[in-house]
Amino acid sequence: MDLKFLQELIMPAHTKIAMLIMDGLGGLPLEPGGKTELETAITPNLDALAALSALGLTVPVGPGITVESGPGHLALFGYDPLQYRIGRGVLEAVGLDIDLEPSDVAVRGNYSTVDGAGMVTDRRARRIPSEVSRELSALLTTRIEDVEFQVRTVREHRLAIVMRGPGLSSDVTGSDPLKNDHPPLPLQARTPQAEKTARLLNQFVERARLVMEAYTPKPPANMLLLRGFDKHPDLPAFPQIYGLRAAAIAVYPTYRGIAKLVGMQVLPVEGGTAADEFTVLEKNWGDFDFFYLHIKETDLAGEDGDFARKVGIIEEVDALIPRLMALNPDVVIVSGDHSTPAVLKGHSWHPVPTLLYGRHVRADSIAEFGERACGRGSLGIFPAKHIMPIALANALRLAKFSA
Amino acid sequence: MDLKFLQELIMPAHTKIAMLIMDGLGGLPLEPGGKTELETAITPNLDALAALSALGLTVPVGPGITVESGPGHLALFGYDPLQYRIGRGVLEAVGLDIDLEPSDVAVRGNYSTVDGAGMVTDRRARRIPSEVSRELSALLTTRIEDVEFQVRTVREHRLAIVMRGPGLSSDVTGSDPLKNDHPPLPLQARTPQAEKTARLLNQFVERARLVMEAYTPKPPANMLLLRGFDKHPDLPAFPQIYGLRAAAIAVYPTYRGIAKLVGMQVLPVEGGTAADEFTVLEKNWGDFDFFYLHIKETDLAGEDGDFARKVGIIEEVDALIPRLMALNPDVVIVSGDHSTPAVLKGHSWHPVPTLLYGRHVRADSIAEFGERACGRGSLGIFPAKHIMPIALANALRLAKFSA
Repeated sequence: MDLKFLQELIMPAHTKIAMLIMDGLGGLPLEPGGKTELETAITPNLDALAALSALGLTVPVGPGITVESGPGHLALFGYDPLQYRIGRGVLEAVGLDIDLEPSDVAVRGNYSTVDGAGMVTDRRARRIPSEVSRELSALLTTRIEDVEFQVRTVREHRLAIVMRGPGLSSDVTGSDPLKNDHPPLPLQARTPQAEKTARLLNQFVERARLVMEAYTPKPPANMLLLRGFDKHPDLPAFPQIYGLRAAAIAVYPTYRGIAKLVGMQVLPVEGGTAADEFTVLEKNWGDFDFFYLHIKETDLAGEDGDFARKVGIIEEVDALIPRLMALNPDVVIVSGDHSTPAVLKGHSWHPVPTLLYGRHVRADSIAEFGERACGRGSLGIFPAKHIMPIALANALRLAKFSA
Repeated sequence: MDLKFLQELIMPAHTKIAMLIMDGLGGLPLEPGGKTELETAITPNLDALAALSALGLTVPVGPGITVESGPGHLALFGYDPLQYRIGRGVLEAVGLDIDLEPSDVAVRGNYSTVDGAGMVTDRRARRIPSEVSRELSALLTTRIEDVEFQVRTVREHRLAIVMRGPGLSSDVTGSDPLKNDHPPLPLQARTPQAEKTARLLNQFVERARLVMEAYTPKPPANMLLLRGFDKHPDLPAFPQIYGLRAAAIAVYPTYRGIAKLVGMQVLPVEGGTAADEFTVLEKNWGDFDFFYLHIKETDLAGEDGDFARKVGIIEEVDALIPRLMALNPDVVIVSGDHSTPAVLKGHSWHPVPTLLYGRHVRADSIAEFGERACGRGSLGIFPAKHIMPIALANALRLAKFSA
């Protein structure tokens, strides 16, 4: 069942769908037999909503596979993340709010150090401070022949480079040896069409080396390592596939970027709290059919290994649920793009608790939103990419399949 | 896992499988938190059977997808409904008990009205009474050159036409503009092989127009609109794939037709009640290995929005279960081809409650047959096309896979 099949069944309706994503929602207990972050959180509003919902556990990409935000979100939006891929260079660039043009090439880069013999001594240049990194990136931004190189620091040693100009190709091999004590690899064209790109990239790297050498005081990096060359992924547009006027409400650039890549309208958010996001939802409720609302802090707390903070953020979001329900949405999804258990201090492969509310949903009568409650739900354990067709059906937006 | 793979594992046995399909079995509560039709029905026999069974919820075609009977039944019989499709013209024809030959072309048609300017004024000719429709269809049945046109009323304005003769192709575009206030479209060949078919169809439509014009009293229709050209789908034969002598017990022509298309032997049923069907089952028990028994009334009650009537029919079927169990079947499946919640007055996308009984089934010990009970069952939520391999295994009819 692909997007084309689904698109042929789409029919218009006046229903509204809200998708609330708590990043890294799924968790683990601190002790065997204990409760997860979501199970520990006191969530009367989500529990009441669960009682009227179908519950299940979503698998972002495949069993056992831990995902980054890119594939995790593509799945939530109904795209097979193994078929549709967003290159890392592109993800870094859109995460910095750079508007990519179809002919641009986005690159992921590292500030690093090499010794006198040209061997990489530290691929991350001792995690060079972001302030220094930003200063260097401004100096490295340049134009060679008819191609602009926009260099932007992501954080510390990590940077994104966007090449803009005629005749560029992403078919270039990277220079990052991916381990220390090896020399940087030559940037080489994989196809004749990529020769100009490779030639300019080598000039760019040599210029960067000279700029860093000439810089005073001596900077903590003296080399650039590049990889992850990509163009805009040109994904089928979410509003066109599903016939939905779609809005994204997210504070963090990466998620605003992913939403933009699938063609959602990204709404401005004043302030950075979950409550601020709900205010944007309320203000724009009349103008869209689909709302993607993203909460980042659950994931950050999980990455920091801060179980209690993750619990607190879930409780904060729970307190906002009545504001969503007061809008009388036809279908509500509450889920995450992946799990980030505090105990693991990072993303994990664990299926993600998922709630589907709607007046035509066959509710499970389980008055609890948590990992084990969702494990007993009638949605079962299912691919995250199935959420959208199920939500569309419940919004009465899919015609009957009659062969 | 395709049919060919399965066929290679088939081994003979003396076991018998009964598949009891209540059309549109799945439902929804009338009020949030209430019970569905099946949950409301008092079903002591099905509940007792459930206690000895594995339970689950089946998805006919894909998540969120609402199906017609055709794809719903193909899935129950183990055919991937996205791979194997029965065209609508064919479904109408087999539903009228017309034996299609491989070279026949089946067409779906509408009696309709056009105005003096040739614009369609009513695609359904005010739902022309079936008696009038049948009289016209008899008059339109004809032969042009070496091709017979058999015209048969399905109901009201809906008709099925079967073309029989040499050199026919279904690669013809339809004439139905699918909305009023547009002229009928020309019937055109999509390939050179279809030119004869298109030419004869245009002559047939012109002749039909003249017949209706000359008819007294003036009939409520003056035009035919045609679409859905198809040949016999030539599906792999159910008895050959599975090594089962397979019988179908169904009253309604559509289901008799689908069973015939997959090569089952369709048994005559005297009378039209569920009890009459069980009598046919008893009489023929010794002669077949697989029985498909179809109950239509659950779906009709659902389509009519009659919750109580659907409950009553389920209870009526429940009372017949002891007659089935008295035959000592090795494997019993009780399921539906899709859901038809009375509250939605139509087919829906909701997964279908499914019960699998057999002496080697790992029973769930859930003594209840209903949507939520099945949602807790160990079969989980699974594609309907998986029912057949699981049933065959439980009937000890599948050899070990050793690569």
